[in-house]
Amino acid sequence: MGSKRKVLALCGGVGGAKLALGLSRVLGDDELCIVVNTGDDFTHLGLRICPDIDTVIYTLAGCVDTNTGWGRAGETGEFMASLSTLGGEDWFYLGDKDLAMHVERTRRLAAGEKLGSVTQALSRKLGVSVPVIPMTDDTLATQVEVEEDGKSMTLSFQDYFVRKRCEPKLKGIHFVGRDNAQPHSQFLANLQDSDLDLIVICPSNPFLSIDPILALPGIRGILQKTAVPVVAISPIIGGAAVKGPTAKIMAELGLKMHAMTVADYYQDIVSGFILDRRDGAEAEAIREIIPRVGVAQTLMQTVEDKIELARETLDFAGLDV
Amino acid sequence: MGSKRKVLALCGGVGGAKLALGLSRVLGDDELCIVVNTGDDFTHLGLRICPDIDTVIYTLAGCVDTNTGWGRAGETGEFMASLSTLGGEDWFYLGDKDLAMHVERTRRLAAGEKLGSVTQALSRKLGVSVPVIPMTDDTLATQVEVEEDGKSMTLSFQDYFVRKRCEPKLKGIHFVGRDNAQPHSQFLANLQDSDLDLIVICPSNPFLSIDPILALPGIRGILQKTAVPVVAISPIIGGAAVKGPTAKIMAELGLKMHAMTVADYYQDIVSGFILDRRDGAEAEAIREIIPRVGVAQTLMQTVEDKIELARETLDFAGLDV
Repeated sequence: MGSKRKVLALCGGVGGAKLALGLSRVLGDDELCIVVNTGDDFTHLGLRICPDIDTVIYTLAGCVDTNTGWGRAGETGEFMASLSTLGGEDWFYLGDKDLAMHVERTRRLAAGEKLGSVTQALSRKLGVSVPVIPMTDDTLATQVEVEEDGKSMTLSFQDYFVRKRCEPKLKGIHFVGRDNAQPHSQFLANLQDSDLDLIVICPSNPFLSIDPILALPGIRGILQKTAVPVVAISPIIGGAAVKGPTAKIMAELGLKMHAMTVADYYQDIVSGFILDRRDGAEAEAIREIIPRVGVAQTLMQTVEDKIELARETLDFAGLDV
Repeated sequence: MGSKRKVLALCGGVGGAKLALGLSRVLGDDELCIVVNTGDDFTHLGLRICPDIDTVIYTLAGCVDTNTGWGRAGETGEFMASLSTLGGEDWFYLGDKDLAMHVERTRRLAAGEKLGSVTQALSRKLGVSVPVIPMTDDTLATQVEVEEDGKSMTLSFQDYFVRKRCEPKLKGIHFVGRDNAQPHSQFLANLQDSDLDLIVICPSNPFLSIDPILALPGIRGILQKTAVPVVAISPIIGGAAVKGPTAKIMAELGLKMHAMTVADYYQDIVSGFILDRRDGAEAEAIREIIPRVGVAQTLMQTVEDKIELARETLDFAGLDV
C-alpha cells in the first residue's frame, strides 16, 4: 500500500452509484468524496425528494433494490396504495421504507438545516461512512423543453422523466438557478485540495446527471484548468445505454449512441477516458481528442464488477491500488 | 318510518366514533351530521395529523383497527421502522396506510384548501357518505398544564398524551386559540337548522374531546338556549373508563369516576342523559340536575352494540326509529 490517495467522484443515479460503491470498497473513507447531482430533486406531496442522493446512499448502504438499481430492497407499497385510494398523486412511486428518507429530510430542511448536513446525517444513520455531498445546498433544477402533440412546453425533470415517461420529444435541457447556486463548500474544498489525486466522472448520463454539476458557477473552469487527472467512464456500452432513456434522449438531441459522443462532450474537461471493451474500436478516434484512453469491462452487475472497475479506474490514473 | 329525522352528533375519538357508526347505520346520510373535535390535532414531522377525525373516518369506512379502536386494520410499520433507523422522531406511531391520510391532507391544506373541505374529500374517497365535519377550520389546540418531578410545565396535547403517556400529573387543560377559532359553518348551520331534531354528545372524554368543541365561541350558549333536545351518553361504565387515561385524568382533576361527575359537567347544556346500566343506581341523583335520564347498555363491542345504542338514543329522544 502506498500513501493516502484522494479521489473525488462526480455522479448521478444508478450507474454512478455503482461505481461509487466500487470506489468505496477500494478506498478508505478519508480517501474518497462523492459529489452527487441534485438537478433532479423536486418537491412532491410536500416532500423534498432527492433521487440521485438516495440512490447513492442506498447503494453504499447496501440496502438498494438491486433489481432496479434504485429504491430500497424489500420495499412495500402500502402508503402508495392508500394514497391512490385517497385520490392523491401516485405517478411517482414512494415505497414505505423510502418515504422515511423524504419525510425526515423535509423535516430537517424545514427546520433550517442545509441539504449537505441533512444528507451527511441520514447517510451516517444508514451506516455510510464515506462522505456523500450534494453538488449544492442551493436549488439548481433541471428542466426540459419538449414537444408534445406539436406543442412546445417546459417541464420539470421528474414531470418529463417519470410522469410522462420521457414520451414527449426532448428539444433542450435547462438548469434553472444555475447562476445563483453555489457549489457545496466541501465540493469546492475537495476540488481545490492540493492533495487531490483524481477526479472521476462516473458513468452517469452526461446530459442529465453530470451536466447539472458542471453547470454550477466555476466548476467547468476549475476542471478545465486543474492539474489533477480528470477521468470519465463512458455510460455507453456496445453502442447502447445500460438503462434509462439515454438512447432516446441522445437521438432526440441529434447525438449518435457512441462512446465518441460522450468523449466529445467531455473533451474540454477530462484528461482521460475509459470506454467499454465492446466499444474498443472507438478508442483510436477518441485518443485524437483526449490524451489518455483506456478500455475496461464497464458493465457493473455484481459487487465484484464494481470493485474491478474502480480498481481499473484508479490504476488507469496511476494511483496505487 | 316517519318523516326525515335530523341529528347532529358531537364526538371525539374512539368511543364517539363507535356511536357515530351506530347512528350512521340507523339514519340516512342526509339525516346525520358528525362534528369532530380537532383540539388534539397537531403538526408532526411536517404532517398535519387529526387523530379524532381519522378515527371517525376509519370507523365509518369500516377500515379501522377494531383491536385498538384507532388506526387502520392490517396496518404495517415499514415507514416507522425506517424512520427510527434514520434517527427520526418515532414516538407517535404512523402506519404506512395511515400515513397517506396525513400526507394528502397536508398537501391539500398547503395548497390552501380548508380542513373541512379536505376532510369531506378524504372521507368520500374512503366511501364515507355521511358528512364528517371538523368542529372548526381554524386552530384550537388543547394544551395541558402538568407537574413532573415537582416542576410545572405546559405541554401540547399529543406531547402529554402520547410522548409522555399521560405520566406527568395533570393540573389543568387549556384551549389555545379558543377566542379566535370559528365553529365550522356547517356545524353552525346544523345547530341553527329549524329542522334539527336532536343533538347527541357522544361517549367521548368530556374534558379532552367534547370540551374543545364547547369552547368554540358561541357553542355553549347555543346549546344552553336551544329548544332541540341535547342528549349526552356517559363515557363511564361501571365506575370506570372504557379505555384511555380518563380515570387518571379525572382523579388528578379531583373528580370522582361516576356518571354523576359527567352529568354534572354537562348539566347546563343537556336536557337528557344516558348512563350505563351498571351505573343505574346513579340515575335517581342525576335526575335532580338533568330533566330526563335513561339507562342503556353503553359498552359498544360489536357493530350490533353500536346500532342498538344509536337506536336507544334516538328512541330516548322521541325520534322514530
